[in-house]
Amino acid sequence: MTTTPQFELFAFWRSSATYRIRVALRLKGLPFNERFVNLDQSEQRDDVFLKINPLGGLPVLFDRGSSRPVRLTQSLAMLEYLEETHPSPRLLPQDPLGRARVRSLAGMMVTDTHPLIVPRVKKYLTTEGKFDDAAWRAWQIQWFTAGLKAMERRLTSEAETGRYCHGDAVTIADICLASIVAVTRVFKIEIARIPTVDRIIALCETNEAFAKADPRLQEGAPKL
Amino acid sequence: MTTTPQFELFAFWRSSATYRIRVALRLKGLPFNERFVNLDQSEQRDDVFLKINPLGGLPVLFDRGSSRPVRLTQSLAMLEYLEETHPSPRLLPQDPLGRARVRSLAGMMVTDTHPLIVPRVKKYLTTEGKFDDAAWRAWQIQWFTAGLKAMERRLTSEAETGRYCHGDAVTIADICLASIVAVTRVFKIEIARIPTVDRIIALCETNEAFAKADPRLQEGAPKL
Repeated sequence: MTTTPQFELFAFWRSSATYRIRVALRLKGLPFNERFVNLDQSEQRDDVFLKINPLGGLPVLFDRGSSRPVRLTQSLAMLEYLEETHPSPRLLPQDPLGRARVRSLAGMMVTDTHPLIVPRVKKYLTTEGKFDDAAWRAWQIQWFTAGLKAMERRLTSEAETGRYCHGDAVTIADICLASIVAVTRVFKIEIARIPTVDRIIALCETNEAFAKADPRLQEGAPKL
Repeated sequence: MTTTPQFELFAFWRSSATYRIRVALRLKGLPFNERFVNLDQSEQRDDVFLKINPLGGLPVLFDRGSSRPVRLTQSLAMLEYLEETHPSPRLLPQDPLGRARVRSLAGMMVTDTHPLIVPRVKKYLTTEGKFDDAAWRAWQIQWFTAGLKAMERRLTSEAETGRYCHGDAVTIADICLASIVAVTRVFKIEIARIPTVDRIIALCETNEAFAKADPRLQEGAPKL
């Protein structure tokens, strides 16, 4: 007899936002099913999926453990929800200033970097914008580099940085940083001279929750 | 004798992120000074400003009322900080599911929409990307329309919508929605057929905290 896990995550293998939720669920020890939606075949626009999320976006997270039906969108909102409903282990510090720093670092990845390299932007730039493959790649490199260099600068200059982005425990900042680095690898984009970022990512990857979230290991990913 | 207000906000008149903080500070009755940084003259790259924020971005919020020096970046992190340190009036619901919905709506504006139309993106597209004025305007219209239509769709279809985006009290979702609408007006971009958005914005603007945050009323704005 199988039981249905509490959480159900509608996901795409190389989605940076999906990666973040995958890591957080495992860090908190929460059982989940992942349901693969193929963005490369526009399955998020199919009628079947539009019943799950009328806006046609990923990821979508269902919490079957709540007394009310819970369907969540937007990765930062999901991370905060998981933190509030399953606070152990903590992924945010307890002091407001530390929480603000972690959220600010997370924002540099989730808000300043990720939205620029998503499929809908690629679609617009390569059609309306007349970007060829080289121009799209230059665009990707531009924003990944800007985002990760800015992170490096803060991580090396701010006293609160520890073994991880904020002190010596994993926070949402590490999850968001790793979610961007994971996608640069999928696209085979190497950003040079970000040693602090590299050090933190290497440490994160010793944790199974991060290692198992690697986009290249997910259903739908091209065979390595 | 003058006293120094507790909060100091480094700001730009038409910045959507600055608008959000301006509204939240006033809603919570927190005294603040606004310090104008002219993005159109790249003052955020001047040595003077880089001592304030080495990453050269806006807004930056200082809280002089804390025992430790507090410098905050990233508007969502600031909004959460203000909510945690000055919880009255509340700008987030108290139940985790309601909080997740408000944060998700906010994310559709702050994460999915705003990052695409900021000055650094304009600079890249109009130089490297060879966008002329018409192409840049089409790009702006594309993302403002996508974001606001998606908001309209959720607001009309979800039962939690009330007089405001979530129930009958102002939340961070309204602030973020209004921050995007405010910028569309600056650029004289009209999005048709978003009656629920229009209704909520009209209600917000009866509140002085929103009305006084209008970009066109700020220092540095072109004279009306």
